[in-house]
Amino acid sequence: MTAAADIAAHPDDARHVHDALVLAARGPIVDPNPRVGCVVVAPDGQVVGRGWHAGAGTAHAEVVALREAGDAARGGTAYVTLEPCAHTGRTGPCARALVDAAVSRVVFAQTDPDLRARGGADVLRAAGVEVTGGVLAEEAAALNPYWTFAAQHERPYVTWKFAATLDGRSAAADGSSRWVSGPRSRADVHRLRSEVGAVLVGTGTVLADDPQLTARDDDGVASPRQPLRVVMGERQIPAGARVLGETAPTLHLPTRDPAIVLKSLHDKGIRRVLLEGGPTVGAAFLQTDLVDEVIAYIAAKLLGFGASAVGPLGVTTIDDAIELNLHDVRRLGDDVRLTYRRPRCSQA
Amino acid sequence: MTAAADIAAHPDDARHVHDALVLAARGPIVDPNPRVGCVVVAPDGQVVGRGWHAGAGTAHAEVVALREAGDAARGGTAYVTLEPCAHTGRTGPCARALVDAAVSRVVFAQTDPDLRARGGADVLRAAGVEVTGGVLAEEAAALNPYWTFAAQHERPYVTWKFAATLDGRSAAADGSSRWVSGPRSRADVHRLRSEVGAVLVGTGTVLADDPQLTARDDDGVASPRQPLRVVMGERQIPAGARVLGETAPTLHLPTRDPAIVLKSLHDKGIRRVLLEGGPTVGAAFLQTDLVDEVIAYIAAKLLGFGASAVGPLGVTTIDDAIELNLHDVRRLGDDVRLTYRRPRCSQA
Repeated sequence: MTAAADIAAHPDDARHVHDALVLAARGPIVDPNPRVGCVVVAPDGQVVGRGWHAGAGTAHAEVVALREAGDAARGGTAYVTLEPCAHTGRTGPCARALVDAAVSRVVFAQTDPDLRARGGADVLRAAGVEVTGGVLAEEAAALNPYWTFAAQHERPYVTWKFAATLDGRSAAADGSSRWVSGPRSRADVHRLRSEVGAVLVGTGTVLADDPQLTARDDDGVASPRQPLRVVMGERQIPAGARVLGETAPTLHLPTRDPAIVLKSLHDKGIRRVLLEGGPTVGAAFLQTDLVDEVIAYIAAKLLGFGASAVGPLGVTTIDDAIELNLHDVRRLGDDVRLTYRRPRCSQA
Repeated sequence: MTAAADIAAHPDDARHVHDALVLAARGPIVDPNPRVGCVVVAPDGQVVGRGWHAGAGTAHAEVVALREAGDAARGGTAYVTLEPCAHTGRTGPCARALVDAAVSRVVFAQTDPDLRARGGADVLRAAGVEVTGGVLAEEAAALNPYWTFAAQHERPYVTWKFAATLDGRSAAADGSSRWVSGPRSRADVHRLRSEVGAVLVGTGTVLADDPQLTARDDDGVASPRQPLRVVMGERQIPAGARVLGETAPTLHLPTRDPAIVLKSLHDKGIRRVLLEGGPTVGAAFLQTDLVDEVIAYIAAKLLGFGASAVGPLGVTTIDDAIELNLHDVRRLGDDVRLTYRRPRCSQA
């Protein structure tokens, strides 16, 4: 059936998918799993089940909605924001559950970008269920941009953040760097930390700056959601280092290879990493093309000399400069936050 | 008389001064002299004379307006956007002309910030003319921000412009720097050049880059208004240098002292200078606190290595960083234009 014919035959599809998207948005923003919503409609058009996924380890949205619908789902339609999964994870495959519930039709929004989980639509069709995909697909993908990116690229989305003076310095000649950026920039970084799966630095930063790397409010109080703190590099973390404090979990990965670090974090369900390392770690990720987003906090200061915020990238001529796309510009007091993305085919 | 009593006694003052400001705006934006307007009102309330200053070497606004008014000015009121001058420049003092025309009252907006020209109000009062100053004074000063600054500081307003990558580089390791910034940034620089009295570089820039330093449109056609091109430094300018081309005048000042350069340009009637020199000249002006505005074009590129856009400033610790105030942020394609001003008591 063509999309146009589908719309004519099922005029309520978009409305029900939209309702499922609203349900999906109740899920946790930062989670190994995507936010998914489901609405089950009985043959008479009555909504008989609603569900959303509340995060890794809990039931999938379809299962929740079918449970509520019970026998009323028989012969009805299930609206799901993501192609029902075909694989057996911590919960059973949802495609199977929909077949077992005897729904006659399944409408979903986003096609599953996860190669391991994909195939739910085929399972349903093979069982004689009518399937329509792609309804409000972009809206659904926008609900889980980092999860979608990670599923497509089999690694977390990497946001590299740095603060610098207008002339690109991260510290003065004597090494002093405290408060290069202003209070609004610092608050913005704490917000970012609370919205990512992990923050990442090298052992060099731990040894030099002894940062906490927790998400805190203006009064220094820890935010309810803390990222995993990841330290990469072969050197030991000193026993008393603040990054080992109790506020958040900490992981030491004794490698200097960005790809190995990202694979390890992906396997742990991390979908977005905030890279807060110094110029060396930043350059290592840039050179291996593993930075997807750059957030630069530019302070209204000139130093003229001192450590550069960005380390050598192996670029020797202007035509080989690493090109970025400007995505967003925001004033934060006298600082400016510039957000760039790497030109790619598919982006979060 | 108090300002409040003035308003009650002369309810039309602001309206006539406003009309004089509109006339003033007809004058040239870039000129050694300020833009000034004048309206002469006869005792019966009829507007009998209008004038504006059309630039250095032409009659002052008051003289133009009084000429139109003739005998009708007798016993009337002259509204002027700037305190009438008391000194004899290329034209006679305007305060004297107003006395000679036998006006009974003079209302002006901005008090003359020029120490040499000041005193017109006193001349008028001494001759028995009623004088009211300060009506729409801010609006009048805003009409001539750079002239006002230059009169107060006895030097031109200095805008330092540079282009850099996000990591503060002006060229790659091999020296290549062509198109660090994008086409919209370059067009913006040409607009700036057409709006300043002079552009300034060091001999080093002339020898290294051989720039034209003219204001041109997207097709390379010279703008109607060209700045004076100023080259500072003790080295010779090569005979074939493009900066010596016919499109605009060129001045070579064989000194490395920013203060001497600015005094010389001030004496020539230059009220705003666009400093386009490299890191050395930029640093020389920054270190002597002779930069009033910084315009940075930040390109969406990373180099990691190469010449810094800003040279050593003698700053060794973060607390001594040169502090700026963020004034304006604008996207220009994938570039960002950041405008900063130095914190000062009075600003253009």
